[in-house]
Amino acid sequence: MSDKRKAVFIVMDGVGDRPIPKLGGKTPLQAAKTPVFDRLAKEGQNALMNVIGPGITPGSDTAHLALFGYNPLEDYPGRGPLETLGTGLESKPGDVAFRTNFATLDKDMTVLDRRAGRVFTREEQDILQSKIDGLEIDGVQIQFLATVEHRGAMILRGEGLFAEISDVDPHETGVKIWECKPLKPEAKKTADVINKMMVEINKRLRDLDVNKEREKRGLPAANAILIRGPGRHSEIQTLKDKYGISSAVIAGGALYIGTAKYVGMVHEPVEGQTGTIDTNFHNIAMKTIECIEGDYDYVFVHIKATDNASHDHNAEEKILAIERSDEMVGKIIDTVGSKIVIAVTGDHTTPVSTGDHSCDPVPIVFWSEFIRPDRAEKFSEIDAAIGGLHTIRGLDVMPLLLGYAGHIEKFGA
Amino acid sequence: MSDKRKAVFIVMDGVGDRPIPKLGGKTPLQAAKTPVFDRLAKEGQNALMNVIGPGITPGSDTAHLALFGYNPLEDYPGRGPLETLGTGLESKPGDVAFRTNFATLDKDMTVLDRRAGRVFTREEQDILQSKIDGLEIDGVQIQFLATVEHRGAMILRGEGLFAEISDVDPHETGVKIWECKPLKPEAKKTADVINKMMVEINKRLRDLDVNKEREKRGLPAANAILIRGPGRHSEIQTLKDKYGISSAVIAGGALYIGTAKYVGMVHEPVEGQTGTIDTNFHNIAMKTIECIEGDYDYVFVHIKATDNASHDHNAEEKILAIERSDEMVGKIIDTVGSKIVIAVTGDHTTPVSTGDHSCDPVPIVFWSEFIRPDRAEKFSEIDAAIGGLHTIRGLDVMPLLLGYAGHIEKFGA
Repeated sequence: MSDKRKAVFIVMDGVGDRPIPKLGGKTPLQAAKTPVFDRLAKEGQNALMNVIGPGITPGSDTAHLALFGYNPLEDYPGRGPLETLGTGLESKPGDVAFRTNFATLDKDMTVLDRRAGRVFTREEQDILQSKIDGLEIDGVQIQFLATVEHRGAMILRGEGLFAEISDVDPHETGVKIWECKPLKPEAKKTADVINKMMVEINKRLRDLDVNKEREKRGLPAANAILIRGPGRHSEIQTLKDKYGISSAVIAGGALYIGTAKYVGMVHEPVEGQTGTIDTNFHNIAMKTIECIEGDYDYVFVHIKATDNASHDHNAEEKILAIERSDEMVGKIIDTVGSKIVIAVTGDHTTPVSTGDHSCDPVPIVFWSEFIRPDRAEKFSEIDAAIGGLHTIRGLDVMPLLLGYAGHIEKFGA
Repeated sequence: MSDKRKAVFIVMDGVGDRPIPKLGGKTPLQAAKTPVFDRLAKEGQNALMNVIGPGITPGSDTAHLALFGYNPLEDYPGRGPLETLGTGLESKPGDVAFRTNFATLDKDMTVLDRRAGRVFTREEQDILQSKIDGLEIDGVQIQFLATVEHRGAMILRGEGLFAEISDVDPHETGVKIWECKPLKPEAKKTADVINKMMVEINKRLRDLDVNKEREKRGLPAANAILIRGPGRHSEIQTLKDKYGISSAVIAGGALYIGTAKYVGMVHEPVEGQTGTIDTNFHNIAMKTIECIEGDYDYVFVHIKATDNASHDHNAEEKILAIERSDEMVGKIIDTVGSKIVIAVTGDHTTPVSTGDHSCDPVPIVFWSEFIRPDRAEKFSEIDAAIGGLHTIRGLDVMPLLLGYAGHIEKFGA
């Protein structure tokens, strides 16, 4: 292929919306001032995208897998491994990973508080973490990381582990924790390890000074963990294996970082990148440019602020997040526009009116200097409907982006 | 089916393009004067077509298989059998076919010239061919045809032959030819035959008078052949088997003729048909009309000039090739328009700017007297985006064309 370019993939989380009466029936994308996105739409190829399929409301994790070119119906390992990878715990194929809560149990293992009061200092987290991380049960190594508040991530590593196990968390207080049971015969060993682990962790945590001090301050003791979202890190082809490309992720949220790492992207941290409107859009633009100028063939940039505003039913903040993203992409285009093929989209629709993910398709635009225009003049859910690419699926994005960028070999002679 | 019509399928090779600055940002299809194609677009059904799939750059062979209704991921036999069939060597299921070069070897089988000087007279070719064609090794019959310059085509016919064999051509001079090795156990016999064949052909050619005379004229002796692109002619359903139709191919290039014959089309030669702008468009129109008036249900017409102009970065010649094709189709419509359903398209995009195949979709129009119109007014990559068929795949073309023409039976009652 004569003309290779860098592929840049911008996702504004939950950016799709529905007409909002107080915006005169416009969607936030229509109401926002987006000169850069509109230029891309006017000069490039637009589509509406069913990220998973028509009528299917995507989760963030399955949506991103699809957008990275992986069929979530085949390659979705569950949320555990994806989010765990994003916390910095480096799971490997064969590991079972999940998310955890610190919790408070009575002496007979009755759940008193499913989040152990939520409030933790980093010092408390470090001490508790040190008592769990490194534990070994029946030859299975346990890695543990306390993350935010009562939350944490955990990996089990060993032979013959499976994620098909039942819950230990009864999801209510005043009830004993449940026994973990295998949901298929091969998972018996995993369930046994979990049950022994629940007891062992309780034994290690219950008499700690840190818990006595928490109780003095009126906080519940963190004398146990509860686990959720188990998933097995599968053997999958990385983006390098599939397409021969080196790839980077620029994101704030653990789930997005983790999903990207799961398919082989390298996380490039950005100072000041958060999941809110206060994220540092300028630094994200600069880091994206640095990655494009460097050795990466593909750079994925995730903006969470649009989704957070949607969940908060805050149309104004969603518009602001869109406008700041527009400015951010403008900086990228102005600096490295001649070297890239870029796609801008969302991972799903989150209507401000409902605050929840919905099945409505999202607009997507593909732009490069050489690309054919179509009749769309603006970037929005409504305008994208006359785009030249018509309706695409999330799974089509990676081939289109890498195809335009010259990273997919000709099929045949 | 009440109203059967003849199906006519016109492919302008590599006709798709991208906006060209010196054409005022138009593509060659937009810049060309195409009153006939525009009439078809205005009166017919238009689409953009991903010949293989979104983002995938098609080869000419895989593209044509898809356009004939065969999934190239399942039915692609490699270039050897397709091109070989186009030369006139009639391979059959089970044969292994490949392309060849005459080459010059030293006494110890060191490669001195991979093309034996390129220049050959027909007389030389005939003599060399007669020494190779008809050879039999270990019960395997060898058919050989010298084609253009140093090039040729070869078929191995016998029990248990497979194409999974390694190269003999080291792709450089000053190096001995490589031993052919099986790439899967079943291919051992094939590799053994190839190795014996290399020696036997060298023995038969090296002392020929024709080679002594070549050396006197300062040309390298053609004392060996090198082989490439092995493929096994598979058992596939012909168009007759699949659809019950009789079909013809009108094409100049061996690859297109061969791919069409592979699926069961009969080659109808045309005087003056070549792969360049000098091809006889009038004769092609006349032969197409003759085939339509005759017993064929389906006629495939391939114009190569558009692709050659693209590879030469020659926008003006591409426009000229398009305009002459337009005139050619006009003659067909004027004469037999009431008897046909016609589709006009390309097999892939070859931008004049890059001179290489690219992944951009191509426009396609389906026309017949009875067909519904859509909103497209002109035939181009940009206008087709508002076509009533939206986006289709190459595999959809044959069912659409034969469906409109009344050659596909109702499914159900």
